[in-house]
Amino acid sequence: MEMLEQTTKIPHIQGVELVGTWDIRPDNVQEIRQALSDLGLQCVSIIPDLFADKIYWKGAYTSKDKAVRQRAIDDTRTVCDFARELDCKTINIWPGQDGYDYLLTADYALERDWECDAVRTLATEYPDLAFALEYKPKEPRTHSYMARMADTLLLALETGRDNVGVTMDVGHVFVAGEVAAESVVLARRAGNKLFHMHFNDNFGCWDDDMIVGSVHSVAYIELLFWLDRCGYNGWFSMDQYPYREDGAGAIGESIQWLVQFDDVQKRYKSEIEGLLSAGDPIETSRFLRGILL
Amino acid sequence: MEMLEQTTKIPHIQGVELVGTWDIRPDNVQEIRQALSDLGLQCVSIIPDLFADKIYWKGAYTSKDKAVRQRAIDDTRTVCDFARELDCKTINIWPGQDGYDYLLTADYALERDWECDAVRTLATEYPDLAFALEYKPKEPRTHSYMARMADTLLLALETGRDNVGVTMDVGHVFVAGEVAAESVVLARRAGNKLFHMHFNDNFGCWDDDMIVGSVHSVAYIELLFWLDRCGYNGWFSMDQYPYREDGAGAIGESIQWLVQFDDVQKRYKSEIEGLLSAGDPIETSRFLRGILL
Amino acid sequence: MEMLEQTTKIPHIQGVELVGTWDIRPDNVQEIRQALSDLGLQCVSIIPDLFADKIYWKGAYTSKDKAVRQRAIDDTRTVCDFARELDCKTINIWPGQDGYDYLLTADYALERDWECDAVRTLATEYPDLAFALEYKPKEPRTHSYMARMADTLLLALETGRDNVGVTMDVGHVFVAGEVAAESVVLARRAGNKLFHMHFNDNFGCWDDDMIVGSVHSVAYIELLFWLDRCGYNGWFSMDQYPYREDGAGAIGESIQWLVQFDDVQKRYKSEIEGLLSAGDPIETSRFLRGILL
Amino acid sequence: MEMLEQTTKIPHIQGVELVGTWDIRPDNVQEIRQALSDLGLQCVSIIPDLFADKIYWKGAYTSKDKAVRQRAIDDTRTVCDFARELDCKTINIWPGQDGYDYLLTADYALERDWECDAVRTLATEYPDLAFALEYKPKEPRTHSYMARMADTLLLALETGRDNVGVTMDVGHVFVAGEVAAESVVLARRAGNKLFHMHFNDNFGCWDDDMIVGSVHSVAYIELLFWLDRCGYNGWFSMDQYPYREDGAGAIGESIQWLVQFDDVQKRYKSEIEGLLSAGDPIETSRFLRGILL
Repeated sequence: MEMLEQTTKIPHIQGVELVGTWDIRPDNVQEIRQALSDLGLQCVSIIPDLFADKIYWKGAYTSKDKAVRQRAIDDTRTVCDFARELDCKTINIWPGQDGYDYLLTADYALERDWECDAVRTLATEYPDLAFALEYKPKEPRTHSYMARMADTLLLALETGRDNVGVTMDVGHVFVAGEVAAESVVLARRAGNKLFHMHFNDNFGCWDDDMIVGSVHSVAYIELLFWLDRCGYNGWFSMDQYPYREDGAGAIGESIQWLVQFDDVQKRYKSEIEGLLSAGDPIETSRFLRGILL
Repeated sequence: MEMLEQTTKIPHIQGVELVGTWDIRPDNVQEIRQALSDLGLQCVSIIPDLFADKIYWKGAYTSKDKAVRQRAIDDTRTVCDFARELDCKTINIWPGQDGYDYLLTADYALERDWECDAVRTLATEYPDLAFALEYKPKEPRTHSYMARMADTLLLALETGRDNVGVTMDVGHVFVAGEVAAESVVLARRAGNKLFHMHFNDNFGCWDDDMIVGSVHSVAYIELLFWLDRCGYNGWFSMDQYPYREDGAGAIGESIQWLVQFDDVQKRYKSEIEGLLSAGDPIETSRFLRGILL
Repeated sequence: MEMLEQTTKIPHIQGVELVGTWDIRPDNVQEIRQALSDLGLQCVSIIPDLFADKIYWKGAYTSKDKAVRQRAIDDTRTVCDFARELDCKTINIWPGQDGYDYLLTADYALERDWECDAVRTLATEYPDLAFALEYKPKEPRTHSYMARMADTLLLALETGRDNVGVTMDVGHVFVAGEVAAESVVLARRAGNKLFHMHFNDNFGCWDDDMIVGSVHSVAYIELLFWLDRCGYNGWFSMDQYPYREDGAGAIGESIQWLVQFDDVQKRYKSEIEGLLSAGDPIETSRFLRGILL
Repeated sequence: MEMLEQTTKIPHIQGVELVGTWDIRPDNVQEIRQALSDLGLQCVSIIPDLFADKIYWKGAYTSKDKAVRQRAIDDTRTVCDFARELDCKTINIWPGQDGYDYLLTADYALERDWECDAVRTLATEYPDLAFALEYKPKEPRTHSYMARMADTLLLALETGRDNVGVTMDVGHVFVAGEVAAESVVLARRAGNKLFHMHFNDNFGCWDDDMIVGSVHSVAYIELLFWLDRCGYNGWFSMDQYPYREDGAGAIGESIQWLVQFDDVQKRYKSEIEGLLSAGDPIETSRFLRGILL
């Protein structure tokens, strides 16, 4: 409750993401519903905890233990029910433990089947909710099944459900070696599959969860331009764990950077269109130099 | 001709890949056809040169210049005609220049359209040929449109043609940060889309074109196991450019490694099945230690 | 105590490393001394906790807070005193929090001074102990001051103390993009500065703490060859945190791999000498194929 | 000659770097001397070609062939003599082929001896010239002997010559995973060993030779701040090979970015000092946001 109140002091914040069953549990759903309403906040998405609970340390939807797989589906159902109570439209699925650490220890075909079946089952039972699959190449496992935009799109398509799409976490994009704007285009082409956005920054090899703009700048301008162009109308969520910094301060900075990057791309839309058609790095450099310095 | 003859001296070689129009040109098709027949070699695939010719330095199928895009399609047609003459079933498409170097210099949506349209056009005109798209994350551009297995599968699916699939170059897989065996499974699930295999090795950050087995070992055993399991029945092609070494010696070594890796996975098939089900890194380690030391 | 007993059941183990003040504290030094003696184990090294204790989360020897810097030196002194009590000759210093997360937040010159001064002070006070500096490019910070072999050697030389050298953790070496054997040679040339070895394996981009041999094989053979050749006579310590596996099993496997790798390099010493002089990748490949398959 | 003239049209250019014996040869030294004088350009440095000439493809100073090692030293002597003729004070040594491709193919100790001896010999013979060793982690070899700042400093120190130091190529720094500003500090501490600077940009995993500022921005501001603070008074050389762009345009853009980055750090020197002491990422973020957006 305290965190919720703190949140309202950060400019531009209109909603929050909750982790079930850390933040939200059967016993506090109504209390949270009331608090959000009082504070004028929306529940943007709920993330079932399929990663920190020790039961899932060797996999959730793809655990080799059938009972654990069932439990993972049940835990997600619980979170889906919370979402309906809170008028929340999006379930953000990050199955961080679904993957493998060592070669020759996983049946990639069978486990991908399980992953796909679990998501299909849930999406079929809750057709009013959007299931946004969050990809990340590694950590906590050395390899995740939902590793990059394109493989996650393949899985979303394989479920055959319109309400299954993707969450792009920009930090995960950098670790994956993707260009965020190009990944947005991939999601668009696969049938408007970009459901949700998480923002943060890093040095490109690990999910450092840093303030937006501390490392990358051009990449964000390009990303925001393409989000507009592809008609993205979801949330811009700040997903950061500031270990050593003041949380509200770090989140607030990320928001300010994003607001300013977005102003830039909106103001220079036609110039950017021209640069994309021209394809001349010297012109692009001149433009960016004018913007950034 | 000299190279073809040399080839026959390397054990296990049954065919060759040709690059059009370096190795094969309108004026020498018949001569090559005869030579291959005399030497008992098959033409495994033909690769149109869409990368070295300076006309393609800013893109082939995705050049911003319409005339160049047309030329790229025409050059591929020429190679397709050669293939028919040589009873070659596979066109290996590596559009190395289709990509971009700088952010904010490319229209990802439009250019991916062009890429897809070009491939669809060719696959429609030559339904008797298999079009195997070879992905590579970077080089010669800093970013390629066909970068990884999953995005290339999305493009192949988008063409809507059964005769469009993927070439996996194992070196490119390592650079892409993929686990080769898992990528084989992805291709299998997308509808048996693995058409062709290129082998070589590297240190994981660049296409070093090294002898198979010089860096990786477990990854090859796992890959060969899954190729079998997924019913791959195409060629095992050695794609190496040994800059400082004796070419025939380096290729010969790669083949020997592959033959021996394949023996291992065939001999221990049931043990490996057991390891994949058990998912215990300690058991897997014990098994590998027995094999490798 | 239980862990110590467990340890003796793993073949080849002759000693343990302790973390002060987790494993060893003022109140249990004598008890541990007795237990080690009873179990026939040596205390290989002691590692002061300069990383997990929250007081050090923004730096230990290089904290911007003078009191914290002093505390880090004092905590190390405590551990040095333990070492004398236990006849332990090596203090393994891993100042994991000494580094920075963001650009433009650290005074690299001043903080490197502090790092160097702290180590010099300690090494001067305890001339009978060897101070082995363990480098690691990142984590927990995005950048560490002791990041790679060569920069850590520069710092060791800068202290001007013969009893300051380096711990090579082979996992950190892979993350650093170093070739372990070449780094051993660097340490040798800087005046026999390799004091201690930690073994484990990973995929090359993060400290995955995996079983030795699960990813790399040639690198270990080459490393063990050069350790011999450079006269390394310290310990071979297994530094692993098996999150999801049986600890004793995982450590036991690492030891078995190392023992077997070492057998190989010892048996083929003259062949390896020949390969290094010849510099022919084809010959090296043939040799390795004979060993590994 | 044409290139020299072109050069003078790019604002801010006061000198050029020459490659011997491509640009400069025994037969044209006097002509070039005259041309430089006429155009008001200085000869900033000369780089002996120890990388492109096929004789050096398996190493120059560290070739396993004694005659090649001798030739590499002789070729460098020739370039040193040119430098004296042209009043050029710096020999930029990039021994790109000195390294190795495969594990177990190089005697790291012996070859590092050769490297060190060659540099010492030359530096002793030409005490009036500065020998700036340019490091790069890889390419053309998979591993270079002069790979990073710290190992190159160790080698420079090992020669025992004051006129041996380092060239920092900022692109190589990014590929090496170094923070440029911290590497400047390392060079400073090792005895003012930063002799020369090459500028360009890349995506962090390969020497893409891009326009400064296309990828990184904060890193350049920080670097220029520390160059000033460490008293660097050498040249700022643009080292780019614009494959697909207009050369003069690309170089011109790099210079403009650098000039503007340098203006920023000069203007905000005291604020930056404050940020380095404070070590608060939120304050640093706020500062950068004000500068860049």
